[in-house]
Amino acid sequence: MPLIDIARVRTIGVIGCGTIGASWASAFLARGYAVRANDADAAREAYARDYIRAAWPALVRLGLAAEASPDAALDRFTFCKDPAEAASGTDFVQESAFEREDLKQQLLARLDDTLPPEIVISSSTSGFMPSVLQKQMKHAERLVVGHPFNPPHLVPLVEVIGGSRTAPETVDWAIAFFRHIGKHPIRIEKEVPGHVANRLQAAIWREAVHLVDEGVASVADVDAAVAYGPGLRWAIMGPHMTFHLAGGVGGFAHFLAQLGPGIERWWADLGQPSLTPEVSAKLAAGLADEVGPRRMEDITSERDRALIGILEAVKKARDH
Amino acid sequence: MPLIDIARVRTIGVIGCGTIGASWASAFLARGYAVRANDADAAREAYARDYIRAAWPALVRLGLAAEASPDAALDRFTFCKDPAEAASGTDFVQESAFEREDLKQQLLARLDDTLPPEIVISSSTSGFMPSVLQKQMKHAERLVVGHPFNPPHLVPLVEVIGGSRTAPETVDWAIAFFRHIGKHPIRIEKEVPGHVANRLQAAIWREAVHLVDEGVASVADVDAAVAYGPGLRWAIMGPHMTFHLAGGVGGFAHFLAQLGPGIERWWADLGQPSLTPEVSAKLAAGLADEVGPRRMEDITSERDRALIGILEAVKKARDH
Repeated sequence: MPLIDIARVRTIGVIGCGTIGASWASAFLARGYAVRANDADAAREAYARDYIRAAWPALVRLGLAAEASPDAALDRFTFCKDPAEAASGTDFVQESAFEREDLKQQLLARLDDTLPPEIVISSSTSGFMPSVLQKQMKHAERLVVGHPFNPPHLVPLVEVIGGSRTAPETVDWAIAFFRHIGKHPIRIEKEVPGHVANRLQAAIWREAVHLVDEGVASVADVDAAVAYGPGLRWAIMGPHMTFHLAGGVGGFAHFLAQLGPGIERWWADLGQPSLTPEVSAKLAAGLADEVGPRRMEDITSERDRALIGILEAVKKARDH
Repeated sequence: MPLIDIARVRTIGVIGCGTIGASWASAFLARGYAVRANDADAAREAYARDYIRAAWPALVRLGLAAEASPDAALDRFTFCKDPAEAASGTDFVQESAFEREDLKQQLLARLDDTLPPEIVISSSTSGFMPSVLQKQMKHAERLVVGHPFNPPHLVPLVEVIGGSRTAPETVDWAIAFFRHIGKHPIRIEKEVPGHVANRLQAAIWREAVHLVDEGVASVADVDAAVAYGPGLRWAIMGPHMTFHLAGGVGGFAHFLAQLGPGIERWWADLGQPSLTPEVSAKLAAGLADEVGPRRMEDITSERDRALIGILEAVKKARDH
């Protein structure tokens, strides 16, 4: 199955234009592509244009946008009422529609009918496996999941997974394409619920919930235990590499030999909470204490400012 | 039990002068305190002096050191052969000796005999509970665990836990003191293995090991799933607050209602690996691929540069 040459990609279809789709559109426009977008809700056109404009300064600051102003980029942005019309003539499609299995299956089948088989279709889904999503597609071999992290225009991770009918070349193409546009794609070899990053998030949150439920520490203090502690390093390297360095000159082998048994004892003691109404109420009360008088927008804008600063700091340290 | 007034603390005992002790000494000296240090290995005096000198520029850059040069600070650093001699006359003691239960118990009992009861003794232990460590102490009420994260002079988190014989005032004092010197202390209400942050690290690593063991993704890609994805946000906020913001305008309640059931399904699917020789070999091979031609020092110095940049970025975003 011949796929389009990555260097020949000029126009990208962005199907679904909510938070994720509008952010993808910003990322693609910043890299110089034209974007043909669609959403079932026509009001999403104005939303997306505002989003792109608001996202632009951070993209410039991080060296991800070629143009200083978003004006020319917005001229390359076309919104269509119909998904097939939006996809028509595009060289790659990123689907970020509403998370409902039957809707996504039908939508992807329709895009499949519209596009020549050399065009790769990528779904942003966090909840569905590609083998399920591609069921109604004729050219199922060109479908991948390309799962981003919010907001995709800033967070580099894209998880790439093929389904049972996906061609291996499609996965390779998608990884190469995402790398080409400055993302950090990873290859997921097996379909599992939650892909990889969401499973890791679920794992840490499970213990975070357990510790609050057991009265070991407050919601605010459990959160602080991450953000003022190991979280500072997780923006630089993952848990395996962290423990390699924790092994000192002996590295990972020394770490496993010296600290492995202790960690296995901790594993045995980790909790398995459920989100019962009681547990949920405890979490909500603790979270209200942590939030205090701050408004949601204050916390969000602090996070966004910090995220850009962190991305700059890590880039600078890596480029050193 | 009257404890020394925090404003009256002038001299701090640093007992155990390995990686953790030397870093604590740097932090205390930077805040203007005198330090009396001890280690069973006399070579640790030179090690600590080198460590303090090397740590100084970062402390200045982060606004944590009052003096531009470490010279005056090093004049306030005294190394003693005997732990009781080092502790003598100090106003607070941070113990970071070798992690062996009987050694720590004896050492803490000896420090206890040396110091007036108004002086708080804090142990850096990651592996032992304060109720165990204080067993041989007469004034057990003044012992806390004050568990830092490596390196303590940069990472703000200190986990404070009292044992069964610790006075509540001691825990309050330690939290106030660590906050006074610019750390971010958290209060752990119950003694559990691994305190809080190490349990959260263990939880995420367990799933990271499982995903590699099951062939879902490589060691490098699992690490990237953290560092290029959710890890970027964990330097800013913990998992509870992350999910509060993920709930959008509806916040945590909306998140729990909409995404709670999905997360519980992921929880049910998380792995429970063991560090068998086969699993350890798989991890070591994957880690060697991730490291590639880089030397340990290259990775460590990149991490340290990035850590300082991240601390600056987060501080800037919070102070905005």
